[in-house]
Amino acid sequence: MATDILIRHVRPFGGEPTDLYIRDGRFARRRSDAALEIDGKGRIALPGLVEAHTHLDKTLVGMGWFENGVGPTRNDRILADRQAKRELGIDARRQSFRQIMQTLAFGVLHIRSHVDVDTEIGIANIEGVVETRNALRDLVDVQIVAFPQSGMLMRDGTLALMEEALKAGADIVGGIDPASIERDPVRHLDAIFALGERYGKPIDIHLHEAGELGAFCLELILERTRALSLQGRVMVSHAYCLGMLEPGRQRSLIEALAAERIAVMTVGSPSAPALPLRLMRQSGVIVASGSDGIQGTWEPWGNGDMLERAKYLAQRNGMANDADLEETARVCTFGGAEGIGLAGYGLSEGSYGDLVLVPARTLAEAVALTPQKRTVVRRGRILVRDGVPAGGLPHVD
Amino acid sequence: MATDILIRHVRPFGGEPTDLYIRDGRFARRRSDAALEIDGKGRIALPGLVEAHTHLDKTLVGMGWFENGVGPTRNDRILADRQAKRELGIDARRQSFRQIMQTLAFGVLHIRSHVDVDTEIGIANIEGVVETRNALRDLVDVQIVAFPQSGMLMRDGTLALMEEALKAGADIVGGIDPASIERDPVRHLDAIFALGERYGKPIDIHLHEAGELGAFCLELILERTRALSLQGRVMVSHAYCLGMLEPGRQRSLIEALAAERIAVMTVGSPSAPALPLRLMRQSGVIVASGSDGIQGTWEPWGNGDMLERAKYLAQRNGMANDADLEETARVCTFGGAEGIGLAGYGLSEGSYGDLVLVPARTLAEAVALTPQKRTVVRRGRILVRDGVPAGGLPHVD
Repeated sequence: MATDILIRHVRPFGGEPTDLYIRDGRFARRRSDAALEIDGKGRIALPGLVEAHTHLDKTLVGMGWFENGVGPTRNDRILADRQAKRELGIDARRQSFRQIMQTLAFGVLHIRSHVDVDTEIGIANIEGVVETRNALRDLVDVQIVAFPQSGMLMRDGTLALMEEALKAGADIVGGIDPASIERDPVRHLDAIFALGERYGKPIDIHLHEAGELGAFCLELILERTRALSLQGRVMVSHAYCLGMLEPGRQRSLIEALAAERIAVMTVGSPSAPALPLRLMRQSGVIVASGSDGIQGTWEPWGNGDMLERAKYLAQRNGMANDADLEETARVCTFGGAEGIGLAGYGLSEGSYGDLVLVPARTLAEAVALTPQKRTVVRRGRILVRDGVPAGGLPHVD
Repeated sequence: MATDILIRHVRPFGGEPTDLYIRDGRFARRRSDAALEIDGKGRIALPGLVEAHTHLDKTLVGMGWFENGVGPTRNDRILADRQAKRELGIDARRQSFRQIMQTLAFGVLHIRSHVDVDTEIGIANIEGVVETRNALRDLVDVQIVAFPQSGMLMRDGTLALMEEALKAGADIVGGIDPASIERDPVRHLDAIFALGERYGKPIDIHLHEAGELGAFCLELILERTRALSLQGRVMVSHAYCLGMLEPGRQRSLIEALAAERIAVMTVGSPSAPALPLRLMRQSGVIVASGSDGIQGTWEPWGNGDMLERAKYLAQRNGMANDADLEETARVCTFGGAEGIGLAGYGLSEGSYGDLVLVPARTLAEAVALTPQKRTVVRRGRILVRDGVPAGGLPHVD
C-alpha cells in the first residue's frame, strides 16, 4: 500500500480545482513527491458518502426474487419480514457483506445499520453483521444498532436480548414506535434510555408515529435527552410527524431538536410525509439520510447509492436548483457524519484520507445525474477506480 | 431487413414462456421457419414503452450544464424557461433527436411530446420536432402537442400561432392551467376545444390547478367533452387536484372521467400531490404516464426510461408488492397506448411487431430494478440488442 498519494486536479465539494494529498491515511499539506499520483481530471471530490440508516441484515441482494404479496400496514410488513427470515434463510453475515461491497462502488464508506434482535432469531443477525464488519474493517466503517423490529417490552425476553446484542458488539441502542407498536411510550423510552446509560451507548429510534402522537413521543425523547445530558448522542429516524404538524408546532419542535442536538434521519420516501428539510437545516437541526432497506421484503427496490439518495431528497422536497442540490449532497455527507458521530470526517487537513471522485461538471449535476464511474479512496488506498473495484478486495463466499 | 423474425423463449408481460413471431411487421401465428431467430433467454417481453408526456424541444441533454438559480413558483420557471430558450440557443430539432435516441435504448417506441408555441419563438420548435419526427419515423412514433406554455389568450397572437402549428404538423391541441395561468377558464377551454373541433384534433391540457379550482376546471373539461362527443379524445395532464379533494368529491369526478373516457396522465412526481392511482384504475379511468421534462431548466434530472417511471409511480403511491408493480407497468404500456390513442398496440396476433425484452426474473423485478441491457424490436426490426444500438441507426449532426 502506498504511504502517500497525490490526487491532482479535483474540485472539493464542487469548488475551485486543487490537488489533495494524503499521507499516513490523512489529508496533509504536501511536503514531498508522492509515491503515487492520480489525475482527478477536474472531477468533483466528495468525502466518503454516509449511509446513516439501512438494514444490512435483511437485504435480499444476490438471492432469489422475493414474490411480495404483503399487505399494506406496517404490522403486515413486520410479520412478513419475520416469516421471510425463517423461510428464506437470510444469512445476515453474507447479505451484509453483499450490500456493503455493492455500495462501496458508489463511495459509501460509513454505514449505520439497524440489525434485528428478536425472540425468534435472538442475536444471530447481530453476530453475522459483526463478523462482516470485522472482515471489512479496512474498507468501511460499520455502526450496528441493536434494533427490536418486532417490539421489545411487548415480547418477553427481547430486552435481555438487547443487552446481549450490546455485549456482542452492537454500538447503539435502537428503539421502535413507542406508542403505535409498543403501546406504551413512556416505558419503551425509559427502557431504551436506561440501556443507553448502562452501556454508555448512543440511541437511535425508529419513529413512524403520525402527527400529534409522533410529536408527543418526540417530546418524551427531548425530555430524556435533556435530563440525561445526551446532546449529540440521540438520533430519531424517519420522524414523519415533523411533516404533519401545523407550522407553529412544527417550528417549536424543530427548535427543540436543534437545541438538544438530536439528529433526524430522513430517507425522503416518496410515499411518506415530506419533512421540512430547508427549515430543519436553517434551524440548525442535524439532518442525516439513508437508504433504509434495499431490495428486501419491505420494498423491492433500492441500490444504496447515497448520491442518488441526495437526488431523492431534493425531488421529494421540490428542490430543483443548484443550491438545493448542493444542500442535499451535504445531508448525505457532512450531515450524516455529524448525525452518526464520525470523528475526523471531511476533506480538510488532518481529516481521514477518504474521498469519492465523481465525473460531473458541477456538484448539482453529480446529484441530478448520479454518474457511476466513480473513484473511491479510503485512508489513501484506492478501492475503486473509474467504477472498477481494485484487485485484492475481499469476496463473499 | 428480415421479413420475419422468431423470438424464442420470452415471457409476455411476465407470463408463461412462449415464442413470439413477427411477419411483415406484425405479430403473427407461426407458419414457417423464420429468416431470423433470437433467443429470448426467458426474458420479460413488454410491448413498446409509452412516453405519454414529455417536452422533447426543451431537454438540455448533451448540452452544457444549466446552472439553475430559478425561484420556486411556476411563473418563475416559465420565465426562466423562456429566457433559457433565448440565451442557450436550444435547438428543438437537435434536442428532440437526442432525447428520442436516448430513450430508444430503454424501449420507448411511442412518444407524445408537448412542444412550445409562443410569440417569441413562434412555431420554430414545432418545425424542429416535425423534422426530427420525419427523420426517425422508422424508429419511433411521435405525437406533437401544440403547447401554449406561456399562455394563449393572455398573449396576443398566440392563438393564431396555435393554428399555424396545427397546419405545420402538430397532431394535438394543448392547453395550460385555464384559471391560474390564463385567468379565464371558460374562454381558454372554449378556444382550445374550438381549435380541436375545427382541425379534427384531440385535446391535451396541462392542469396543475389545486383542489377545488382544479376540480372546477375538470368539470368544465367534462362538460365540453360531453357536449362535443369527444370521448376518448381528451387527456388531462397532471390533474393534481384529484389528489387534493375530499373522498366523495374525488370519487364522483373520477367516475365522470371514466364515463367520458378522458385519460389522465400522471408522472408520479414525489413533490406534487399523489393521485389515487388504484381508485382511478379500478374505476376505469384511462391512466397514462410520462417523464415530463428531462434534464431541462425546470428539473435537472430524468432519463426518460418509462420502466423506471413505473417504479416512481409505485413508490409515490406506497405500492410495493408484485401485483402493484405489474399495475404500474401496465400504466406505462397499455395505459399510455390507450391514453394517446395508439392503434395496433400490444403483443397479440395482428398487433404491430414491437417489443422490449428486459432481463428480469419477474415483471415486478423489471420495474423495481429497471435492468438496462434491453433488446428493442420495432415492426420486426432489431433496433437495440442487449443494450447496444444496432448498426445503421441515424445520428444527430
